[in-house]
Amino acid sequence: MKSATDKATSTKQIYLTRRSPNYWRVTFDNPPLNIFGPEAILQMKEIMAALETDEHVKVVVFDSAVEGFFLNHSDFLGKLDDLTGLPSGPTGLQAWPDILARLPRAPVVSIALIRGRATGNGSELALACDMSFASREKAILSQWEVGVGLVPGGGPMARLPRLMGRGRALEVLLGADDIGGDLAELYGYVNRSLPDAELDGFVDGLATRIASFDKRAIIDIKRLANANSLPSDVEIGAGWDACIASIVRPAAQERIKTLIERGFHKSGDVEERLGYYIGQLGR
Amino acid sequence: MKSATDKATSTKQIYLTRRSPNYWRVTFDNPPLNIFGPEAILQMKEIMAALETDEHVKVVVFDSAVEGFFLNHSDFLGKLDDLTGLPSGPTGLQAWPDILARLPRAPVVSIALIRGRATGNGSELALACDMSFASREKAILSQWEVGVGLVPGGGPMARLPRLMGRGRALEVLLGADDIGGDLAELYGYVNRSLPDAELDGFVDGLATRIASFDKRAIIDIKRLANANSLPSDVEIGAGWDACIASIVRPAAQERIKTLIERGFHKSGDVEERLGYYIGQLGR
Amino acid sequence: MKSATDKATSTKQIYLTRRSPNYWRVTFDNPPLNIFGPEAILQMKEIMAALETDEHVKVVVFDSAVEGFFLNHSDFLGKLDDLTGLPSGPTGLQAWPDILARLPRAPVVSIALIRGRATGNGSELALACDMSFASREKAILSQWEVGVGLVPGGGPMARLPRLMGRGRALEVLLGADDIGGDLAELYGYVNRSLPDAELDGFVDGLATRIASFDKRAIIDIKRLANANSLPSDVEIGAGWDACIASIVRPAAQERIKTLIERGFHKSGDVEERLGYYIGQLGR
Repeated sequence: MKSATDKATSTKQIYLTRRSPNYWRVTFDNPPLNIFGPEAILQMKEIMAALETDEHVKVVVFDSAVEGFFLNHSDFLGKLDDLTGLPSGPTGLQAWPDILARLPRAPVVSIALIRGRATGNGSELALACDMSFASREKAILSQWEVGVGLVPGGGPMARLPRLMGRGRALEVLLGADDIGGDLAELYGYVNRSLPDAELDGFVDGLATRIASFDKRAIIDIKRLANANSLPSDVEIGAGWDACIASIVRPAAQERIKTLIERGFHKSGDVEERLGYYIGQLGR
Repeated sequence: MKSATDKATSTKQIYLTRRSPNYWRVTFDNPPLNIFGPEAILQMKEIMAALETDEHVKVVVFDSAVEGFFLNHSDFLGKLDDLTGLPSGPTGLQAWPDILARLPRAPVVSIALIRGRATGNGSELALACDMSFASREKAILSQWEVGVGLVPGGGPMARLPRLMGRGRALEVLLGADDIGGDLAELYGYVNRSLPDAELDGFVDGLATRIASFDKRAIIDIKRLANANSLPSDVEIGAGWDACIASIVRPAAQERIKTLIERGFHKSGDVEERLGYYIGQLGR
Repeated sequence: MKSATDKATSTKQIYLTRRSPNYWRVTFDNPPLNIFGPEAILQMKEIMAALETDEHVKVVVFDSAVEGFFLNHSDFLGKLDDLTGLPSGPTGLQAWPDILARLPRAPVVSIALIRGRATGNGSELALACDMSFASREKAILSQWEVGVGLVPGGGPMARLPRLMGRGRALEVLLGADDIGGDLAELYGYVNRSLPDAELDGFVDGLATRIASFDKRAIIDIKRLANANSLPSDVEIGAGWDACIASIVRPAAQERIKTLIERGFHKSGDVEERLGYYIGQLGR
């Protein structure tokens, strides 16, 4: 494999580390906010292909090197064409939903280690992982999009009701508020929330354990569980199309503009307490 | 719209209040027990039509003005024909299941604010809402029907397993016991249970927040989440048919008669601790 | 009915007790480990047929007479042909998955009372029951199979994601660790975990309550809830086939052999802390 992360360029935002041939880590490192733009999608695409084709990897942990942010929303300062112009993937879906549709079907166990904000793309990635564990004190999950008149594009309408039931899913999606570790655990948004001091050890222990098991048995079990728990690519695609359609509407454009004026996309309170600030936009 | 609640008649049981063009409240007010008979269904039908067609409403909260009862079971003192003779609705289902099939698909976010007993119809309405929040101390949810030999008619066999998994759903349906706020939250029967003193403020805050968001984005998100989380009308109809068939069976008629003799349909202990009393009928 | 448990033979491993015509108990009693081999499957098959055909039984509770073990894994010292050579059942599935496919559809409410380890078959039986209640202190649930390179055969890939969502299901299946009462309740693996001293009384009270209700209403409610919550027989069959295929692979044979050398299939630490020991095999 020739990974984006092997290139020594200034745009490197995602690091792939092989703790062993069986156990990989993928670390989001785009300070200060871990915003997730088109370049990051391209890097994820190469990592996705590696996870699908490597014969040895059994488990991959996604984590962050950026204080306060696991993985953040899309880049709203760039051009929309930079996102929608990315080549489609093997599923026929556009680049980001393509990756999210493939990750749960990949022959490797994916685990999200969530410390800091998992906003928008970050939440969507966690939901596409096979498991997720959150810092009780420091994790915040958020599908914030409706707050600026957007429809989320990476599948949460498809995944959240299956995970936590319709009522709690609609609260996450339509309340669009910041959700901390305790509530995320109660709702089943994550597998479990652990005390921050225990999170790294727990996830590393679980990943090491799974990496010691037989890959063929892992694949068969995952494939059979997937049969009744995954949305179709068509359903994921419908969500993406609704997202793209929503971005260009005046209601969204105006709210995004106002939010940027208030400090969105910059280090500070708006990014840290996004749930609060989107609740002020339409009043 | 010309609503049933606009008519000043002595039979008015449901009040519609517009806190703003975007945020409505629907209040059940049929003291002393908030029993839900055919007249209330007709009033709900008009409110349902208004929720579907109004261009401005984004969120509706259902609550109660009757101490101790959010919304109660059907009227067992009236004639069955008064219920089954109501005209069918647009879905082709009879009046009550028609309303419950339409509410989750309506272009408005529905929230149940549960204080007091949500027995039978009350539980069914809460399950058809997009979200529900309960008083930790004062909410009681109950699908009590099997206790008198009945099958519930308003969809809980279709909704509960999707919401909380098959095992807990069957306990609710076949144990038929009173379920308080803590257990309702643990099982995901409601989104959350809150301390009674905080419930009104929390729900009002959430409703006000959602009412500030863009209606088009709300509708698209709800539509996409519905695609994988709602039962079909056929499934709802099958439950209704089983309910109607069960009412006329001697096993049900005898148990209902005995329960009425013990105080059912009157203010007092039987209505307040229905779970206990139905457990005594068949011994 | 003429049950296997009516035969006074030295191989009797499962006892059927009729507390009343409406309320039966089925007790696993194969000391010291409650291992579940082909003979036990035959005994369960007769009990299954009785549950399906008896006109009076409304509720059955499965429990254990063996200290420390609710119901354990398959017999790995016997020949595979003794298992796969059992005659298929009415569903067309092999004997064990046939029983597990029929139990949730049977016209009787099944409740698992879990005290001690529910490992492999024990977890699968609990998942096929309509409800399950666990000892908070003494229950341990485990789908341990991937730890020895096996795919579980009795349906957990089909049932767990529907019960607790995909993420937690994959953790149970691919982490393969021992899961105690608290976590089992949090994940919805069981309906509830109760203090050990209260468990028997609670389950007996619930079973007695359900046994007092009308059988016809029970059946109709269960049938309608099943319509949206059960996997197809084909899905159960696919899991079974993957299990049988996995057993003969060298990866599994070697791990099982090593585990037996370390104390598997004997009273002691390996059986009691199986989750720990399978985590050591591949390192």
